[in-house]
Amino acid sequence: MTHLDDIIKSRRDTRHFTNDEVPDAVIQKALQAGHWAPSVGLTDATKYYLIKSTEIKKAIKKLFLDYDKKAAKLTDNEQQKTQYQALKLEAIEEAPLGLVICYDRSVLNSFTIGTVGSNEAIKFSSVCAAQNIWLSLTEQGYSMGWVSILNYYQFKQLLGLPENIEPLGYFCVGKPASNYDNQPMLQQLNWKQKQDVPFIEEITVLHESKIENINFENQDKIGFSSDLSEALQYKIDNKTKPTGSLGILEVLAKQIGEVFQTLEPKIIQPNIVVFAADHGIANHGVSAYPQDVTRQMVTNFLEGGAAINVFCKQNNIQLSIVDAGVNYDFPMNASLISAKIGKGTHSFLHGAAMSKTELELCFVKGNEIVATVAKTGSNCIGFGEMGIGNTSTASVLMSVILELPIEDCVGKGTGVNDEKLQFKIEILRKSIEDYKGDTDLDSKLAYFGGFEIMQMAGGMLQAKEKNMLVLVDGFICSVAFLIAYKKNPSIITNAIFCHSSAEQGHQKIIDYLKVRTVLQLDLRLGEGTGCAVAFPIIQSAVAFLNDMASFESAGVSGR
Amino acid sequence: MTHLDDIIKSRRDTRHFTNDEVPDAVIQKALQAGHWAPSVGLTDATKYYLIKSTEIKKAIKKLFLDYDKKAAKLTDNEQQKTQYQALKLEAIEEAPLGLVICYDRSVLNSFTIGTVGSNEAIKFSSVCAAQNIWLSLTEQGYSMGWVSILNYYQFKQLLGLPENIEPLGYFCVGKPASNYDNQPMLQQLNWKQKQDVPFIEEITVLHESKIENINFENQDKIGFSSDLSEALQYKIDNKTKPTGSLGILEVLAKQIGEVFQTLEPKIIQPNIVVFAADHGIANHGVSAYPQDVTRQMVTNFLEGGAAINVFCKQNNIQLSIVDAGVNYDFPMNASLISAKIGKGTHSFLHGAAMSKTELELCFVKGNEIVATVAKTGSNCIGFGEMGIGNTSTASVLMSVILELPIEDCVGKGTGVNDEKLQFKIEILRKSIEDYKGDTDLDSKLAYFGGFEIMQMAGGMLQAKEKNMLVLVDGFICSVAFLIAYKKNPSIITNAIFCHSSAEQGHQKIIDYLKVRTVLQLDLRLGEGTGCAVAFPIIQSAVAFLNDMASFESAGVSGR
Repeated sequence: MTHLDDIIKSRRDTRHFTNDEVPDAVIQKALQAGHWAPSVGLTDATKYYLIKSTEIKKAIKKLFLDYDKKAAKLTDNEQQKTQYQALKLEAIEEAPLGLVICYDRSVLNSFTIGTVGSNEAIKFSSVCAAQNIWLSLTEQGYSMGWVSILNYYQFKQLLGLPENIEPLGYFCVGKPASNYDNQPMLQQLNWKQKQDVPFIEEITVLHESKIENINFENQDKIGFSSDLSEALQYKIDNKTKPTGSLGILEVLAKQIGEVFQTLEPKIIQPNIVVFAADHGIANHGVSAYPQDVTRQMVTNFLEGGAAINVFCKQNNIQLSIVDAGVNYDFPMNASLISAKIGKGTHSFLHGAAMSKTELELCFVKGNEIVATVAKTGSNCIGFGEMGIGNTSTASVLMSVILELPIEDCVGKGTGVNDEKLQFKIEILRKSIEDYKGDTDLDSKLAYFGGFEIMQMAGGMLQAKEKNMLVLVDGFICSVAFLIAYKKNPSIITNAIFCHSSAEQGHQKIIDYLKVRTVLQLDLRLGEGTGCAVAFPIIQSAVAFLNDMASFESAGVSGR
Repeated sequence: MTHLDDIIKSRRDTRHFTNDEVPDAVIQKALQAGHWAPSVGLTDATKYYLIKSTEIKKAIKKLFLDYDKKAAKLTDNEQQKTQYQALKLEAIEEAPLGLVICYDRSVLNSFTIGTVGSNEAIKFSSVCAAQNIWLSLTEQGYSMGWVSILNYYQFKQLLGLPENIEPLGYFCVGKPASNYDNQPMLQQLNWKQKQDVPFIEEITVLHESKIENINFENQDKIGFSSDLSEALQYKIDNKTKPTGSLGILEVLAKQIGEVFQTLEPKIIQPNIVVFAADHGIANHGVSAYPQDVTRQMVTNFLEGGAAINVFCKQNNIQLSIVDAGVNYDFPMNASLISAKIGKGTHSFLHGAAMSKTELELCFVKGNEIVATVAKTGSNCIGFGEMGIGNTSTASVLMSVILELPIEDCVGKGTGVNDEKLQFKIEILRKSIEDYKGDTDLDSKLAYFGGFEIMQMAGGMLQAKEKNMLVLVDGFICSVAFLIAYKKNPSIITNAIFCHSSAEQGHQKIIDYLKVRTVLQLDLRLGEGTGCAVAFPIIQSAVAFLNDMASFESAGVSGR
């Protein structure tokens, strides 16, 4: 064992400290060791904040206790819970010094070497620094404890950290009061045994990529039988009501009968699929929310707390969530469909959002997901989306597809103010002006696209293949529909436009497609909420067609 | 400088290697150092894969080149692009050994200490291991280069890694051919200068969290309604959605909370009551249907074949039918509420439609019927009507109450043509001009009224007494509401206007009352169908208020 091995092996995640102060020289030396850690693209994005204030420590301790309580509820059984609650997992108030290691996301606003594959390289550099600091403190006879059991959002607020500064956690620093018998504390307390040796395996086989070429061009051959259309109209007109008095419900009833080619259509196992992904353009301040909200909302979907969960539950709609490309690694979770193309797109302000291969993969994945839903017997699918910055992406796509000025396609998204709106328009205009790629649709879709939008478009085309009803939500979903429509215009016969979004661009798409929407509720949430809320109205259309009496059967005088 | 400092400082992200092999003992020792890195919750989730195959290295190099080309396009300007392209950023094919450091996400499938705040702790442990490995290799005279410029999705596919195994990147391992003059290569090549010292700052101020602690659990008895209104708005705004993004649903949720004076309103046993009666004015050809249709439709209601039956059944609404004055003697029928004032009104073209006593009786009957519904525990009642000729009655009532010209108040009813419309207007204008009665409201109501309209108005006033939600249907129902409103303006707080009728007069009433409607479906059927079809939307408003997560509870960042 070398000296280094000794230090590495004796480094402990420490939760028991003496009362000794940490001399300035000690922490300075340790942070210098952190500074010598790798820094992707030489960005020096790691920042250190020291905390000595008792008041601040107390507030952080409170945050820990909140989440510790939450964690105890997540344990697998009662015995584990008891064991968990007995563990000392921090020393926030006792440790003489607090350290907050952060990374500065804003370095990504200009070109950074090594981040094209994933923005995470930035935070990984800071973690390398954390490990150096740990080793340096250990060599100096001090130690550190990493507290990650925190609500990071509140933690940032409490420290007054700027939006772009992201903490890795709270680190307790001091002189260790125990070495836990020279092993991890959790092992000493029999929580778990650490393996003696690491898992190592050689990979010797090269695996082939699974992406196939799918031809989307084959158009649908269904022309509605005019006989059936007439029979449907006759049936509708002979219900015990004045002709046309059920308005849009009558139009819907006829359309649904035509799609399913029957006088007695039924909606079977309705589904809504929400596609989530991140957008490189979000790094330029076009959204009112930080990018991390995409991940947070996906978690919220999985936990059943979002609007779409509530409305799907209310209306008996099966809900699925797809990770189309969120900038976050989710744990294995049966209820999240993984179709991740990448950790968010790149910013189209600087170049292509995605490659053509990735675009193709989006269509393949969207296809697969909807094919799986169709296999369950469902004949009705709504599409929803989540992705911070995706109104920007959708606006640009709309502008290039419909050849409209960008200002006609941009709205306030989920809530930017007037000044920010102007800024958003300028950034998007510049992106479009800077485009030097080919003029074909796919080149533009790859350059300006979003993973979730393209997967939705691919999914819609599959829904048409399977002759399902396609429920279209608001603005972003309608842009995805526009893409599907450009690939196969006959999809329009299967589409129901569930609501008019408050986004100004949406009305223009609705006008372009010459369609009408079911609801006008000023919704501008996305997530497929318009589909879910409108669904009972669509069911009303089917219900009156199937269940109302005719003039003849009820003995009511027609005209 | 200690030995550790030396190693930490001389560790380089290396892209230039000699041809020397990496002895097994060297990599084993390095990976053991990695294994001694912290492992959150003692999960040992880090996995190491070695790559020696030339074929695999070649395929990985190809992935790098794809993304390197992409990265070059992302540079901020042409000079930077040229400089970037000249950089050697990997040694995938030259380095004798390839290492893929991964983390196993599946450890999160069971309870893992330290991940409640963020799952990222898992990958951070692996990054700490990477840094240990780097230091150990450096000490042993070897080095490593971290390649992150990869499409991770394809990278995983190519290596055949299972879904749950996530790579941090590809690491080139070998004997360094250069120490880059003992500095980062990017500094040596003048890409950037590394700061000599790290950024360190002490945080001394505790920032207050913007999230207030409001206890929603037991606030049902709040005295000041403005406090409740604020609390409702706060609750609505703190749902995991952008402020205002649920549009009219938010307005409805607040209103319903205010009506029931609670932050957790529930709609209990919703009812719709359809009031049917005949109109003397129908004898003058103002309707497209013969008067007998009123009777026929009542029978249709009782047999379950009408639109209102279908929609009430669909949405679990209790339906009651009232004979307020149909020109027909129905047999005793348990499901028909008899509140018959007379066999239809008289024609107001020739005199008063009803006496003042009959008018009073209408209010009494309407009151009783709704009081009976309220007794069952219902807190939500919709009003519907059926009566051939009742759009004429409603138009005249609207004209005299709002003092608007009759032509502004007349529509095509359930379907008269243009010629007949003109005729209808003339008859109604004459009726109004011929009025010689008193100027008080009740005198006019008796003269021009309809039994079902007056019973509805009386019923609405009772619903307000009982603090029920009052669901208002289309044109005729809104005229009944107008009457109730003139008697008790505070009823407006309990009213939900379910749809905009296709009748032109309806929009004027809506404007007069300064309210918004839930649906715009071009319905013009009556029967309370607008209430029944809109009901799920109203339920959606209640559902989101009660069941959606808040930003705090879901850990989602607000603004």
